[in-house]
Amino acid sequence: MTGLTQNLKETGAAIGEVLDELLPEPDGPEARLIEAMRYALIPGGKRLRAALVVTSAGMFSVSRSSALRVGAAMEMVHAYSLIHDDLPCMDDDDLRRGRASTHIQFDEATAVLAGDALQTLAFEVLADEDTHSNPAVRLELIRTFSLAAGVHGMAGGQMIDLEAEHHTLEIAQITRLQRMKTGALIACACESGAILGRAPARQRQALQAFAHDLGLAFQITDDLLDAEGSPAVTGKGVGKDAAAGKATFVSLLGLDRARQQAQMLADQAVAHLDTFDDKAELLRQVARFVITRDS
Amino acid sequence: MTGLTQNLKETGAAIGEVLDELLPEPDGPEARLIEAMRYALIPGGKRLRAALVVTSAGMFSVSRSSALRVGAAMEMVHAYSLIHDDLPCMDDDDLRRGRASTHIQFDEATAVLAGDALQTLAFEVLADEDTHSNPAVRLELIRTFSLAAGVHGMAGGQMIDLEAEHHTLEIAQITRLQRMKTGALIACACESGAILGRAPARQRQALQAFAHDLGLAFQITDDLLDAEGSPAVTGKGVGKDAAAGKATFVSLLGLDRARQQAQMLADQAVAHLDTFDDKAELLRQVARFVITRDS
Repeated sequence: MTGLTQNLKETGAAIGEVLDELLPEPDGPEARLIEAMRYALIPGGKRLRAALVVTSAGMFSVSRSSALRVGAAMEMVHAYSLIHDDLPCMDDDDLRRGRASTHIQFDEATAVLAGDALQTLAFEVLADEDTHSNPAVRLELIRTFSLAAGVHGMAGGQMIDLEAEHHTLEIAQITRLQRMKTGALIACACESGAILGRAPARQRQALQAFAHDLGLAFQITDDLLDAEGSPAVTGKGVGKDAAAGKATFVSLLGLDRARQQAQMLADQAVAHLDTFDDKAELLRQVARFVITRDS
Repeated sequence: MTGLTQNLKETGAAIGEVLDELLPEPDGPEARLIEAMRYALIPGGKRLRAALVVTSAGMFSVSRSSALRVGAAMEMVHAYSLIHDDLPCMDDDDLRRGRASTHIQFDEATAVLAGDALQTLAFEVLADEDTHSNPAVRLELIRTFSLAAGVHGMAGGQMIDLEAEHHTLEIAQITRLQRMKTGALIACACESGAILGRAPARQRQALQAFAHDLGLAFQITDDLLDAEGSPAVTGKGVGKDAAAGKATFVSLLGLDRARQQAQMLADQAVAHLDTFDDKAELLRQVARFVITRDS
């Protein structure tokens, strides 16, 4: 097992423990809602976004407990978006991470509510003083999360993606869509470490630029996995974009050029980290992992 | 027009203006999402929750601009919950405030996203320094909103309500459900004024107790309107609870006792305001309005 793989595994396990504490096994009549939230959150996937929070926070002497709580809030927002994206009225996916999607395992109404309540819980966690002793830091995190998740970020990107079923997008439009839909949250994860560490503006901008390129490299790799991957490995349905006649980086660029583009973006992302010297070694490894993963 | 009616109308108009500023007419490819959010938010209903924020804030020398922004955030959370509650997989309501529900006017996917993004925007507004100069006040608002909207508040209450279709609830269970589903947000609205005004704990508790009883009186009146009201006046479908065989305060208590109970709770709510003397006169009028309204 490489150092990074081991590191991601440990971070994933630690995030799982924090999530388990923040959302304990339920009782009472609202138990079904909490069960559905836990189902979507735990065991979870690669925890890439949480790992980006923890890894970037690690460059700025942030306490591990703060970083893990913000990583947990990040996974809550991510899980909420996946639950809602999988709904029949959205992308209509029955499979997620090798298991039935939340609306299949429970029902649609419970899935809608579980997504809603996960978003709420993320903000509750960020606002709590256990997350960071400095109120200004907590507010900055809440603002950054809300901008990344909102109309000009993740939710807006999903809206454009849904509308794309009715007209063909060009590469510039897909780039914009994906920068909003997946890139904004990935950038928020990287920035969160800098916010927690009260990093100077210059370093924060370097991390933004890194995340900007990384998010796009991540999405192109997702498109490649949808075109080439196997459901057994990716844990979700594949070939769906082509079946839906949806324009993707792969359909527009072809496999080879899409692969080159992902590589080029990952290299570009890593170049933004020069200012951090050795401290950013783990983030560099994450960038390489993002484009070579098989799920 | 009575003083209160005039006051509610003015507050409603001011809230509408603030919402219009916070969510301006859209352009760009994500425009459809913002249109749907605006459709659900503006012109809006009675703005009762925003009025409770503004009225309670009015007792503590809070700036009008702060109170209106928090009232606007409250209306965003309320609108998000209505959009999602109206979805086919939830309460399946085609009519809201005399117009097509958001998923009818747009489509289900857009409605899910519009609700999601309205919740996000509420937290973005609360975290913004324009809402209050003191970071501790903003964080307290965010925590109070998230607790009221989350698993042990509004979302949990809606979950219990959905499950109630499968088994008959008794009066104590319905009381608990409604305290979560509608009461928590109403209590949050009243508390927000006290948080903005940094009111002493004793006054904050008095407002909590007021809101606790008011929320239940509000819900019983809603059940009475569903049993007796006309769609032309209420602006939404009526008789739905009975048609669904759902236990409500009216089905369990009968019309007369439900009416008495609402009156008793409103009186009890008002009694908690004694500590405020004349300053609470408007809140007292709101309590009377809540149980005599026809929509």
